[in-house]
Amino acid sequence: MRPQLKEHTEIIIKDFVRQKVEESGTSGVVVGLSGGIDSAVVSKLCADAIGASKVLNIFMPSAASSEDDRKEAGAFSRQFGMEFKVVSIKPVIDAYQKLLPSPERKDLLGNVITRARMIVLFHHANLMNRIVMGTSNKSELLIGYFTKFGDGGADFSPIGDLYKTEVRELAAKIGIPKNLIEKVPTAGLWAGQTDEGEMGITYENLDGILYRIELGLTKEEIVARTGLDAKLVEMVWKKHRSSVHKRKMPLIPKIGVRTLGLDWRE
Amino acid sequence: MRPQLKEHTEIIIKDFVRQKVEESGTSGVVVGLSGGIDSAVVSKLCADAIGASKVLNIFMPSAASSEDDRKEAGAFSRQFGMEFKVVSIKPVIDAYQKLLPSPERKDLLGNVITRARMIVLFHHANLMNRIVMGTSNKSELLIGYFTKFGDGGADFSPIGDLYKTEVRELAAKIGIPKNLIEKVPTAGLWAGQTDEGEMGITYENLDGILYRIELGLTKEEIVARTGLDAKLVEMVWKKHRSSVHKRKMPLIPKIGVRTLGLDWRE
Repeated sequence: MRPQLKEHTEIIIKDFVRQKVEESGTSGVVVGLSGGIDSAVVSKLCADAIGASKVLNIFMPSAASSEDDRKEAGAFSRQFGMEFKVVSIKPVIDAYQKLLPSPERKDLLGNVITRARMIVLFHHANLMNRIVMGTSNKSELLIGYFTKFGDGGADFSPIGDLYKTEVRELAAKIGIPKNLIEKVPTAGLWAGQTDEGEMGITYENLDGILYRIELGLTKEEIVARTGLDAKLVEMVWKKHRSSVHKRKMPLIPKIGVRTLGLDWRE
Repeated sequence: MRPQLKEHTEIIIKDFVRQKVEESGTSGVVVGLSGGIDSAVVSKLCADAIGASKVLNIFMPSAASSEDDRKEAGAFSRQFGMEFKVVSIKPVIDAYQKLLPSPERKDLLGNVITRARMIVLFHHANLMNRIVMGTSNKSELLIGYFTKFGDGGADFSPIGDLYKTEVRELAAKIGIPKNLIEKVPTAGLWAGQTDEGEMGITYENLDGILYRIELGLTKEEIVARTGLDAKLVEMVWKKHRSSVHKRKMPLIPKIGVRTLGLDWRE
């Protein structure tokens, strides 16, 4: 019912990583490692593509991340020879909570946290002449389940064309440790948050619906083919439509060609 | 020598602002007001388009902005009936300086400051159900003279198709106070910073070159037509080419159409 991982996916992504590092004239990549599966897959693919010594994994704990997450992220990095660093953004978040209105709104605070992390990643990338590899997957991107200029803010998105269920398949194939693969997916922005709980749908069903939207099926056809509840399909359809702006650069009103008041080639 | 402001520019931008606020179902806009000309033009055009009461201007002082900037930004907002708020991000910047490596690098700190401001603007926009109007102009965008996900991070860029010299023309036309129009352009990220000093070229010359790049002239033709130094043209040409990535969404390696292992319409 859900899309199957294509055979050459791993090669396509590794070639992409190699090419982008070379084209940009940079010396490596920086990845925000959460202890979850997506960021582990991204950093492992980068290490396989350009060498582990050129991959810096940064773990940025939040109130919701556990000591286990930190340990697992560190153990994973060491296992594959990647550089690992912990940067606590707590003082920054505390400062924001003091100066922003409605600091108790956890959804808004979640956006602040993920954007504050983006700043740390880019600072290291700037300093080390590296590029930031994002960890957004296709399922998240297609329904806007990410923060604009936060976790969505990266130089490249190596797994941006992979559905979450495909990321799981790929993870097993490239040797990601089981404890990371089997962890319950969460954005880790507040305690108890889980992706599937917050989205109101399992990734298995989400990917099945998104894949058919991409193929051009109508909502009615998707309901008929998948046997899923019409309300569930409608919800995903709406999220896909309403999040278009998050997948685009800021729009600009086009003014058109100016003259110089003289010959146009002046 | 430089491009001339088109007659209908003001109408095009105001229509754009009205349309985007309506389409997004939001109740107004948030603008980061610096005390300079670009942000003043954006907030005034927004006020003229949707009503001043729906425009919130936020001034975020840095070490480089003066008390005069704050006063002028406030006076400007009051003059046209827009809401004005001062948010000092100093505690956030201080916290970052303590946790990031090489805190003395003013170029890197500049990126942190502009991204920290983006977070404040989006927080207010989220909270008030508004959209963030960016203040980047075409000259900056075309040579990458902005911070990715910092001042470049907005929902829309109303003056993104206007050269800086056109912004000046438009400013006078829509009644921006003289003291703001005549201020020396600066990103305001450190003391003594000026745009033209940092870029190594005047806006007058920059716009003349950029306009001809857009028209498809070669470097040699631009030198011949403008009489400018070949090195200056080469510098702008290079900045334009090397900043392409800053004008695009994070690139994604394309994997292609998957099958479900069955009928494609399954």
